[in-house]
Amino acid sequence: MTSSIIRNPLSRRGFLGAAAAAGAGIGLGPAHAEKPAPDPLITEVQDWNRYLGDGVDKRPYGTPSPFEKHVVRRHVAWLTASPESSVNFTPLHELDGIITPSGLCFERHHGGIAEIDPANHRLMIHGLVEKPLVFTMEDLKRMPRENRIYFLECAANSGMEWRGAQLNGCQFTHGMVHNVMYTGVTLKTLLNEVGLKPNAKWLMLEGADSAGMNRSLPVEKALDDVLIAFGMNGEALRPEQGYPLRAVIPGWEGNLWVKWLRRIEVGDQPWQAREETSKYTDLLADGRSRRFTFYMDAKSVVTNPSPQAPLKHKGRNVLTGIAWSGRGHIERVDVSLDGGRNWRTARIDGPVLEKSLTRFYVDFDWQGEALLIQSRAMDSTGYVQPSKDDLRKVRGVNSIYHNNGIQTWHVRPDGETENVEIG
Amino acid sequence: MTSSIIRNPLSRRGFLGAAAAAGAGIGLGPAHAEKPAPDPLITEVQDWNRYLGDGVDKRPYGTPSPFEKHVVRRHVAWLTASPESSVNFTPLHELDGIITPSGLCFERHHGGIAEIDPANHRLMIHGLVEKPLVFTMEDLKRMPRENRIYFLECAANSGMEWRGAQLNGCQFTHGMVHNVMYTGVTLKTLLNEVGLKPNAKWLMLEGADSAGMNRSLPVEKALDDVLIAFGMNGEALRPEQGYPLRAVIPGWEGNLWVKWLRRIEVGDQPWQAREETSKYTDLLADGRSRRFTFYMDAKSVVTNPSPQAPLKHKGRNVLTGIAWSGRGHIERVDVSLDGGRNWRTARIDGPVLEKSLTRFYVDFDWQGEALLIQSRAMDSTGYVQPSKDDLRKVRGVNSIYHNNGIQTWHVRPDGETENVEIG
Repeated sequence: MTSSIIRNPLSRRGFLGAAAAAGAGIGLGPAHAEKPAPDPLITEVQDWNRYLGDGVDKRPYGTPSPFEKHVVRRHVAWLTASPESSVNFTPLHELDGIITPSGLCFERHHGGIAEIDPANHRLMIHGLVEKPLVFTMEDLKRMPRENRIYFLECAANSGMEWRGAQLNGCQFTHGMVHNVMYTGVTLKTLLNEVGLKPNAKWLMLEGADSAGMNRSLPVEKALDDVLIAFGMNGEALRPEQGYPLRAVIPGWEGNLWVKWLRRIEVGDQPWQAREETSKYTDLLADGRSRRFTFYMDAKSVVTNPSPQAPLKHKGRNVLTGIAWSGRGHIERVDVSLDGGRNWRTARIDGPVLEKSLTRFYVDFDWQGEALLIQSRAMDSTGYVQPSKDDLRKVRGVNSIYHNNGIQTWHVRPDGETENVEIG
Repeated sequence: MTSSIIRNPLSRRGFLGAAAAAGAGIGLGPAHAEKPAPDPLITEVQDWNRYLGDGVDKRPYGTPSPFEKHVVRRHVAWLTASPESSVNFTPLHELDGIITPSGLCFERHHGGIAEIDPANHRLMIHGLVEKPLVFTMEDLKRMPRENRIYFLECAANSGMEWRGAQLNGCQFTHGMVHNVMYTGVTLKTLLNEVGLKPNAKWLMLEGADSAGMNRSLPVEKALDDVLIAFGMNGEALRPEQGYPLRAVIPGWEGNLWVKWLRRIEVGDQPWQAREETSKYTDLLADGRSRRFTFYMDAKSVVTNPSPQAPLKHKGRNVLTGIAWSGRGHIERVDVSLDGGRNWRTARIDGPVLEKSLTRFYVDFDWQGEALLIQSRAMDSTGYVQPSKDDLRKVRGVNSIYHNNGIQTWHVRPDGETENVEIG
């Protein structure tokens, strides 16, 4: 059976690294030409062909293969004073499609993960309302619910890059984003239950964690598309994502998506909470700060190749990445391989949804030349993702938040890839 | 702050079971009337408000809350001779939306879970082809890829119910279905690489597990929408779902979706493999068998309420379920609360995709009356899900496979729910 097998012609164009030993340069036609030594992986019985594996009683809740141990969230110890008020990062370069696995969604906490028994959790809504109410989790699950896929991006995503290329890997430069299908009740439904008073203009959302994280939200957004979610990707929220209840504020910065949500107070002005004054404001070059930059503007990044996922083979390759916009859906993504001199329109594949990650691809041929890879997203409002320099002209380099500038990866002739900036 | 808080009026309509103790019958208006004792969950500081939780360094790959331990796949020991050639079931009654979490996707194995190092995995395509080829996983990941959401249903799903109501819970009656976003290369792309000979009519797909599971597939389907997938729900396939490579045969019975895919042989007729002769054929009343019943016809089930998820509260309630069709998308789902006498059209929420689970809801008021709950799916071809009796008229009761009949749940006045059949 194996005598007519030849190596894949994909290999013909040359190999780099470990793959080079396997058999380059073979495959001139069907069933003739030089024959490689038979591949023992094809001709010999392997252990997994020989022995029974685990049965269906062994894994009530499944986990990834041991060969995927490297696919994990990572944190950067020097970034913050403690891991309880810190962040880790989604391994974007290991993912595909548009759904982020729940176990790999980046975490950002201000007082660690609250571990809450849902039977003991309450959501109180009070303040400028006709009828203040307390909801149990069972109450919420008896109200009409919705399912929506939205991205969540931390305002500080790519924040380290304001002053130039810093972190080597899209997990670290762009990994404070994830994309999840949420299940929950619209906040509008809950506000209709309590009845807003005419002077209700702002809401304060507060978490039950030890930080008591809170943020102010304009009532217009609350009545638009905000969800009070108890589900993610089909099952209950994960503890680090706010179990049993979180706010979902589509298209707006992640800090507003209060986790372990226990209280909503309705008022007539913003609360000026710690997290919207000393933090999550954009410091401009002249020392003034921008307040309430809620929207996450259109952005994209090439996830492969990237510093953690270098090119290993000459010939055919798949470039892929993600794009998103807090103001609508992704209309188009362009990719450059030469630092922005020439652009080609990427192939978008999979669902294109409002305020959701969108997956794009460029299938390309690589012959070992150096590349400067960039991607540039355009959203349904016509907005085009800016260069970092364009952002700096307006915002200076003091900011931490809301950096949606174009990212550049430098692919070297040996396939290794690094984070760079080009003038 | 708490003096004006009253219990949720959802509670006013009465409670059943444990919730009854919490405070029924209160809440006559805003900020006055009889005041309940302050809820210590609101007025007192809880442990999770007081202490720092886990930091971002603790959970590189996250798992569900300890309070969700009951949300697991379950198997039924008496159903099969060994757990290595058996099935477990998706806990549909605990899920929402349309994405099945990867750790909860039902498993069906014929020789247990093959544990394969992807570096040592090969896919060989040979037979009636111009150029037989062997692909490594890295080869496959360098070819153009797609992302698609599809349901996978085992042909034997609901099979126990042919002779009447048997298993008490939608996890067991309908839990051999899941819905996942796959990432992979189209089989058409691979067949274009090897070049089909003119007499190529059938493909044989073979797994690398100890069962060497194999099935025959018509070439027309292979060239239509079949994916050779290495990703699910954003990350690598899970071991029990065929890591590192599986076939995705949209809309067709799950047994064809060969896992741990190692070989595709191209021929001019079907292979008559064990799994398509002695198994996965439909035995009719007269002793003849239907061969190659590939399509999974339109089907639906109410997942809540159901025997494992009884009604606990009078008043407002959410009925929800899933519908799917192997021949297109779900056009409409009707729900009856009285055993099919009256039907109402359910609210479909979330994406409606081809050959995908679709989520539906009916928000209803329950005052403790007995209910006979049914759902009936209609797909984009105009096909309407039949009653079990209609199926039996054509197929008899000897079948195991392809039971897509309407399911009935009996909700008793105490809210407990059971699997029944009505004449």
